[in-house]
Formats: sequence, C-alpha cells, structure tokens
Amino acid sequence: MNAPLENFRIVLVGTLYSGNIGSVCRAMANMGLRDLALVAPRICDDGTEAGRMAVHATDILETKRTFATLEEAVADCAWVVGTTAREGLYRAHVQEPRKLMPELLRRAADGKVALVFGREDKGLTNDEIAQCNQLIRIPVCPGYTSINLSQAVLICAYELYCATGDYVPPVEKSLPATAGVKRRLFEKWREMLLKIGFMKEDKADHMMQGIQRIFSRGVYTEDDVAIMMGVARQSAWFSDHRDKWEEKE
Amino acid sequence: MNAPLENFRIVLVGTLYSGNIGSVCRAMANMGLRDLALVAPRICDDGTEAGRMAVHATDILETKRTFATLEEAVADCAWVVGTTAREGLYRAHVQEPRKLMPELLRRAADGKVALVFGREDKGLTNDEIAQCNQLIRIPVCPGYTSINLSQAVLICAYELYCATGDYVPPVEKSLPATAGVKRRLFEKWREMLLKIGFMKEDKADHMMQGIQRIFSRGVYTEDDVAIMMGVARQSAWFSDHRDKWEEKE
Repeated sequence: MNAPLENFRIVLVGTLYSGNIGSVCRAMANMGLRDLALVAPRICDDGTEAGRMAVHATDILETKRTFATLEEAVADCAWVVGTTAREGLYRAHVQEPRKLMPELLRRAADGKVALVFGREDKGLTNDEIAQCNQLIRIPVCPGYTSINLSQAVLICAYELYCATGDYVPPVEKSLPATAGVKRRLFEKWREMLLKIGFMKEDKADHMMQGIQRIFSRGVYTEDDVAIMMGVARQSAWFSDHRDKWEEKE
Repeated sequence: MNAPLENFRIVLVGTLYSGNIGSVCRAMANMGLRDLALVAPRICDDGTEAGRMAVHATDILETKRTFATLEEAVADCAWVVGTTAREGLYRAHVQEPRKLMPELLRRAADGKVALVFGREDKGLTNDEIAQCNQLIRIPVCPGYTSINLSQAVLICAYELYCATGDYVPPVEKSLPATAGVKRRLFEKWREMLLKIGFMKEDKADHMMQGIQRIFSRGVYTEDDVAIMMGVARQSAWFSDHRDKWEEKE
C-alpha cells in the first residue's frame, strides 16, 4: 500500500446505522484506506448490516477500533480534518476535498491524519469541530445537500486516492497508429471506394474529406487501422470475385 | 437546474437490490441529476429499501421509468456511456470519469447522454457493452476493485457535477487582510511581547521571525487580524492594570 495512505484514519462519530459502517469499509478498501475508528457509536439496528454491506472488506470491519470520545480517537494524529455540510460563523474556513487532498498527503508523510465524519442526523458538534485543524465540505447541488455517510467517506477517499497518482489507467493494448500507417489506410480506402463505385474520380477529393474526418475521430490505434484496412481489402477483393463467389454459394 | 445536467440519464441494468436503487436516487439528487431508467430489474428483496435509502430523493424514485431492454432505455440518447470494472480486448478503450465528463457535458448540450451501470453481480454483458459509444472505469485500488453500485453512480455523478463548474464554494465571510493591516498587527505584537517580558530588545528581531512564521501560516483574514490584535491589546492592558485588577477581584 501507498505509505501516505497508511497514515490516514477514517473516524466516524456517533454512527446510527451499522450498514453505513459496512459501506464505509468497502469504500475505504476501494480507495486503499484501512484504519477505521468509531467514536461512541449509537447503532440503532441489530448490527448485521455492517458485515453485509462491507462485502469483502470485512477485515477493515474486524480491525476497527472504538473510542469513547473524538479526543481519544485522534490523540495520536498530527492533523485532524472534519467534514461538515452546515454553514456558520466558524465553518467559513472550509475547503473542497479536491483542493485539500494533495496538502493532506504531504502532511501524512510525517504523521497520522484523521478524516472525521459526524452523525447521520446531526453531524459534528461545535466542540468536535473545534478539535479539527481544517474542515472539508463536499460539493453538492444546493437543492439537495444531505449526503449519505458512506457516500461522503467515498468522495473524500476517492479524492485522496486520485491525489496519490497511484492509479494506473488500463493500458491501451494496441499502440497508436503512426501518420504513415494512417496515410496508407486512407489511400487504400480511396482506391477501394473508387473501385466499388462509391464515388467517381472527379468527386473523390471531396468525398475523401468526409472519410478523413470520420477516421480522425475514430481510427486511433494499430488495431483500428488493421480492422479498417481489412474492410477495404475485403471490399475490393469481393468486388473482383463476386461472380465466382455467388456461383459457389 | 443546469441545462446539460438535465440531459443526463442514469440507466441501471438488471439491478438486484432495491436499496441500491434508493441510494442511487439520493446520489443523483446530491449531484443535480433527475432522470433514472431501470432496465429489466431483478429485485431480490421486498423492495422497501428503495424508499428508505432514497431519503428525500423519492421524487426521482417515483418518476423513474422501467424498460425491458437497454436498447429501449437509450433509444432517444445521442451518446451512451457504459461503466465497466472488467478488463478485456474490447474493454481496452476505457477512460477515467474525470477526463471524460467535460466532453460528455459538451455532448449533452445537443442531446441526451446515458450513463449505463451493470448488474451488481456481473456488470454489463458484451452485447450491452457493444451498445455503448464509450466506456468509463472508475479509479479504484487494485487490491479491491469491486465497487458498490450506488458508489459507482455517485463518483460519476460527482465528477459530472464538478465538471459543470456550478458549485460555488462557501464564501469566506471575512476579507483577506492586507499587508498594511498585517504589519500593524506584527508591530503591536512586538511592542506587547517586549512589554510583558516575553523577549528582550536585543533578541526581539530573532524572536519575531518565529511569530512572523506562525502568522504567515495562520493569520489570513481581517477577522483573524482582529482576534490577534485583541490578544495583543488585552495582554498589554492587563500587564499595566494587573495590580488594580487583582485588587478588585
């Protein structure tokens, strides 16, 4: 695991629904986080949803720690970041996760960083907010700002994971086609389109502009060129051999 | 609502759990989306979780439409984007949501755009993938790539909402302090620290470098300056009047 990510702790304060805790575990696993702390949970269901929602992230659920107060849960943290949806005098200094995460990654190189999420029904208290060095507010549409707990954790964890730069996008297996290869494809198509009577020689330059436009948008890789080259060759071959082919059928 | 966002449709294919549909509704509401289509849902529970998880986004749940096939659900869409976690020959052309969303917003100015999400247990079929003009893969940690359906929808919707640029960060109510104001604060502190015997004149320049460093990091706004100026004034006043104060107590 990425060393800075190991130094992040997700802290859930006064959580009501065990399913949310399970969903948080799964979201954490998706984004490379492992350290989960609960502060005075107030679970109001039978607790079985936690395991069901965690799916294969039950190791995070099993290794989570529970504390009586936020103060204890973040005692060993060098930096504490709270999340809030409310606005107010001392909540003016809030930042968006995308802007803040690169800074938090730098801080996590030197010490533990806690991301603190409040109660489903009433968030963090003013006293808990006061224990935070910084606040995050997740960008949401003004008409509907109440975000689910595990969804809030996911967005913060996702922005953190993206900020690490660790994600390697799936490799395009086919290399980009070179200009020379693409020019040969284009010539082959011109030849074929003339041969099959799609266009006449005097209109060819104009028609080929349309083909050029479509190829520019859609034919990028060596595989793409191979497919379209195959179409041109087969079309030309078929127009030569159609009579014999049809006889055989 | 933002006009391009109105042109996006979230399409869920063969969904198993009604709770996921409810969570999707809430995530859509959070990010300004409203058009939900289900394709041949396979709900395996009693369906009551949908309303519970949608919370106040039940209007999206109530106005959703259900189709027998993906083809019907996207028939009026000008652009269809599938989501996939699998890798494979024809899945090589996948993009990250953050890179793709600005392009999709431009496309949505001219027509409907569908974002298609597959089954919880087996995603989209090859035939369904073939109906997509583009594919998205969400960046997740290689060790745990199985992302919950509503979490996948949330990340795509969040990236879409962020790409609109509609989000207005909470306004910092206090204006940034000017250099002149900060210099006066700094002088007041120097005067006060000398007065209360925190430092002597010959060490003052050196000590004030530390104060300067702390203020540079922490004192940004007119409100911040007002607080720290108040501290300096009160400290100076108190050191003058301590005796009288203590007499009164």
